[in-house]
Amino acid sequence: MFLKNVARGARFNPARMGKTTIAQGEFLFAGLNSFEPGQEHASHAHEGQDKLYIILEGEGLVAIGSQEERLTPGDVAFAPSGVLHSIRNPGPQRLIVMAILAPPPRQ
Amino acid sequence: MFLKNVARGARFNPARMGKTTIAQGEFLFAGLNSFEPGQEHASHAHEGQDKLYIILEGEGLVAIGSQEERLTPGDVAFAPSGVLHSIRNPGPQRLIVMAILAPPPRQ
Repeated sequence: MFLKNVARGARFNPARMGKTTIAQGEFLFAGLNSFEPGQEHASHAHEGQDKLYIILEGEGLVAIGSQEERLTPGDVAFAPSGVLHSIRNPGPQRLIVMAILAPPPRQ
Repeated sequence: MFLKNVARGARFNPARMGKTTIAQGEFLFAGLNSFEPGQEHASHAHEGQDKLYIILEGEGLVAIGSQEERLTPGDVAFAPSGVLHSIRNPGPQRLIVMAILAPPPRQ
């Protein structure tokens, strides 16, 4: 399966972080998380699941455990199983992030 | 774990595709595959492992099963478990691809 210009598939939601599916495998899930300025995905952890973030557009304040970084396109963050993580769009641009989870979330 | 400008970590090898590790989790592995013009990763399949490719720099000829596409930065390819896939740099630029495997390859 091929997806050209994957960020084009971003869907924003005025009420909360928008979600789009890129790839749904047996062992790996990839999707887009799309944030209007000020929106965030609050701190949470996944026991038994690793998560990789890749910033595609905009700027994100990403926290992994006790560390926080301001990330821009081409930057990556990794939250291993069980580690608290969060992401917030400080604005003023929209933020598009690819999120890859293994194993995939339960349907 | 944060990695700024992840493509900067690419390592090229005149003899074959270069490999760099980005993240090594229990459930997910992310690395860079780096190709000089003309280099390729020949057709192969992983039984029981999904692979996602994200093109970071350059241009790649990617085959998944019987389909082939010319991919550029921002494009994605997904090879589910058991499906043949290959990637080649037609040149003239260097090609850098992020490869994400779940579960991780055995050490």
